[in-house]
Formats: sequence, structure tokens, C-alpha cells
Amino acid sequence: MLDHIRIVLVNPTHPGNIGAAARAMKAMGLADLCLVEPKEFPSGIATALASGADDILDNAKIVSSVEEAISDCHYVVGTSARIRGISLPLGSPRSCSVRMIEEAVAGNKVAILFGREDRGLTNEELQHCQVQIHIPTDEHFSSLNLSQAVQVICYELRMSALEIHGGVAMPKVKSHELVSVDDMEHYYAHLYETLIEIGFLDHSSHQKIMAKLRRLYGRIRPDSVELAILRGILSETQRIAKKDKE
Amino acid sequence: MLDHIRIVLVNPTHPGNIGAAARAMKAMGLADLCLVEPKEFPSGIATALASGADDILDNAKIVSSVEEAISDCHYVVGTSARIRGISLPLGSPRSCSVRMIEEAVAGNKVAILFGREDRGLTNEELQHCQVQIHIPTDEHFSSLNLSQAVQVICYELRMSALEIHGGVAMPKVKSHELVSVDDMEHYYAHLYETLIEIGFLDHSSHQKIMAKLRRLYGRIRPDSVELAILRGILSETQRIAKKDKE
Repeated sequence: MLDHIRIVLVNPTHPGNIGAAARAMKAMGLADLCLVEPKEFPSGIATALASGADDILDNAKIVSSVEEAISDCHYVVGTSARIRGISLPLGSPRSCSVRMIEEAVAGNKVAILFGREDRGLTNEELQHCQVQIHIPTDEHFSSLNLSQAVQVICYELRMSALEIHGGVAMPKVKSHELVSVDDMEHYYAHLYETLIEIGFLDHSSHQKIMAKLRRLYGRIRPDSVELAILRGILSETQRIAKKDKE
Repeated sequence: MLDHIRIVLVNPTHPGNIGAAARAMKAMGLADLCLVEPKEFPSGIATALASGADDILDNAKIVSSVEEAISDCHYVVGTSARIRGISLPLGSPRSCSVRMIEEAVAGNKVAILFGREDRGLTNEELQHCQVQIHIPTDEHFSSLNLSQAVQVICYELRMSALEIHGGVAMPKVKSHELVSVDDMEHYYAHLYETLIEIGFLDHSSHQKIMAKLRRLYGRIRPDSVELAILRGILSETQRIAKKDKE
């Protein structure tokens, strides 16, 4: 089930961190690494620090945006030392790992976003996430190296996975066929278009309102039937708005 | 209670690992570092990798044997990737951390021995230990960097310490002021009215669709600001639909 979980490093600056993250992943049984515009990769330093986890680096996918990194995923988790204005549900590495493993067991693809060494994730990037992991660091020294953060999360994922294998067998839950991040992006684009057409959004307010709507609909995690209904409502609204204009 | 726990690095070869270990310790609230005959220390590389945890390095005690490092301790724990012939009780990072915190709470001094990068701890060194921690790495790739091993153990110690204090203290997130069932009922009535007006619902289908929409929006559990946005969208849609009819 750990193969359903992708580690996404967003704009990593130091290739050594990429290598150390790959080693941490491999030791914990993870393999799916995705790099969003790394500053320097491939790199001899990364390979040296990977210390035998070369296959993880060789198979790493390099993409140009967070959207691309998570487009086929169903559950997206952010990590950030900073707690921002955006009120995303917050969980510990342990509680979030239990949930991620449950998602993976249900057949869903999970992505965990790790931000830049100096600035973490942007608010925009966090908006793609259903939940944010907070590693409970010391209040006076919250500075965790990127690869150390990856290590802690991968360790907790492995612990959760082992517990499921060794502990109580999880009953199969009738699965929602959840929509992917891509489907949700299409929905948000459709929603935005419609809200402009009915005059609900104007240019001064649209970013803030859309951010709130994304957070709100992100919590639903609709299945394909539900998304079809939501999009049907938008299409019908657009039809009326168009007739109104004519 | 974390100040009762000492991290002992036995013959570390790479000064970078000493620095990274110091940073991992400090972020998790530990401070007592002891180095047994480090190959290179003090070192600019160690200081660079400590990234602000200089005080841990400055206060690190340098000794010439494991015996000296643990002479004032009451409970000694070994870490090793290799499971040796020596039949020491074996525990996970989690179970051992719970025990170490209990020891610390009882006022006992605890030491955790981390072995050399290449060879770990000797059997002689392990004989000083009451228990051995095994980090459950992947069976085909058990290679964990020294500072990553320190990170995992310090993280588990912090988690155990926080739990004793009354659960993991998560930072306060601006709390959703959730809307009531009544508010949601008003929303559903408004939604129903609007969907009739735009022609999305007809009398043959409305019960089934409304049931699905209730389940969907019920999952959101919106706060008052979010519900105001959702109702604003409906009002705007109604305004357009009304104009269309005129």
C-alpha cells in the first residue's frame, strides 16, 4: 500500500536534500518521488546522499508545477512548519499517516507536498491539500531539515502500514469512486466561469472567494456521480445566464 | 523531562552527521549531546549542518569511551540496524520511547547509543544496554543515515513526552464557527427553490437529487462565512433566472 503514496518535493534548492529524502523513502519502503522544478537535478551530490537509493532518483518524475505533480491523486496532504491564515485541518504525523494508509488501502492515490527549504509551501499550493501535517517541533526551534521532515513522515507511514498488516484486518468500506485532482480543477474552472457569468464574482474579490470555495468543495471529496450533479447545476445556470444576456 | 535524555554518538566519522543530529535534537526539544571520540570535531561542516543548533554543539561533551559517556545514567538504550547474536530485548522506536520517558519522569537519566556510520555498535557496547531499538526499515534496504536515525528516535521521544503532558499539543487553528442544522435546512430550501427556478430539477427527479445534494453538502460542515457565500451564489442565480423569465 506504500506504493500508492507519492512524495512531492516542491522547488528543492539543495540536491543533497533530494538524495537524503530518497534514502529515507527507500528505507521506509516508499518509492514514488516527484520533484517540482528542482534547482539542481540530476546531481552527483544527490546520488551520493541517496547512498544506494539510486533507483528512487532514477525513477523520480520531474514536473513544472504542483498541479502536474498531483493531477492523478485523490488525497493530497501538505506539510508546513508555518501555520498560516488558511485554516486547513491540521493533523500530527501520526494521525495523518493512519488516514493516508486508509486511503491507500482503499485504492486511492495519495500525495504529500513538502515545501521549499526556506519558505515552505505557498498558500496557493496549500489550497490543493485536504489536510496539513504539523510536525510538533520545539516552539523555540522549529527548524527541521527537509530530508528529516521526509524521514519523520515516511517513518510514520511505515509504522501505520505495519500496524495494519500485523493488527486488525481493516474491513472493506464500500468505496466512493472518488474524483481526481484533475476533475476537481475542471470543476473549479467551470464554477469560476459560471460565477463570473452570473455576476457573483468581480475582479476585486474573485481570488479570495475562489480560495474559500476551493477549500469548501475540497472538503467534500465528491464521487463521480456527485460531481456530475454539481457540474449539471453549473451548466444549467450558464444556460439561464446566457439567455438573460441575449 | 526530555532534558534527562542524552544522545550519544559513538565514533561518528562525518562531522555533517553530528551537525544534522544536533539540529534534529534541538527541533525535538533535546539538548544533551555526547560524542565518543568523534573523527572530526569541532568542525565548520558540523556547525553549518546544525543550522542554528550551535548551542547543542557548543555544550556537547566529548569523551573517550562509551563507559564514560553513560557513567551517570540509569537506563541505557542501544540502536542498531543489525540484529546481532547478543540477545538483548528488542523494541520499536515507539515502545522504547514510552519507556524512556517513563524513566525520565521517574528522575532517571537515560542514554541512547548510536553506532558508527559503517559498523554500528560493537557487541561489547551493546552489553551496556538494557534494550535495543530496532527502527523497522524495509527488509531489502535497511540503510538509514545516522542523523536520520537520531531524528526518528528524537521525534518519538517528543511524541511520547507530549502525550504524557496531555496529548500532542497542536497549534491553534482559527476555528470554524460551524453553522447549525437549522441554517443548513434553510440552505437546502434555498437550493431547492433555485434549482427549480433554473430548470435543473423537475418533479420526477427532485427527491433523489436533493437527497444526494444533502449528503454532499452535509459533508462540508460549512462555517457561517462559507454558508453566506453559498447562499450569495444562489441569490445571484435566482436574480438572473428571474430576469430571464421577465
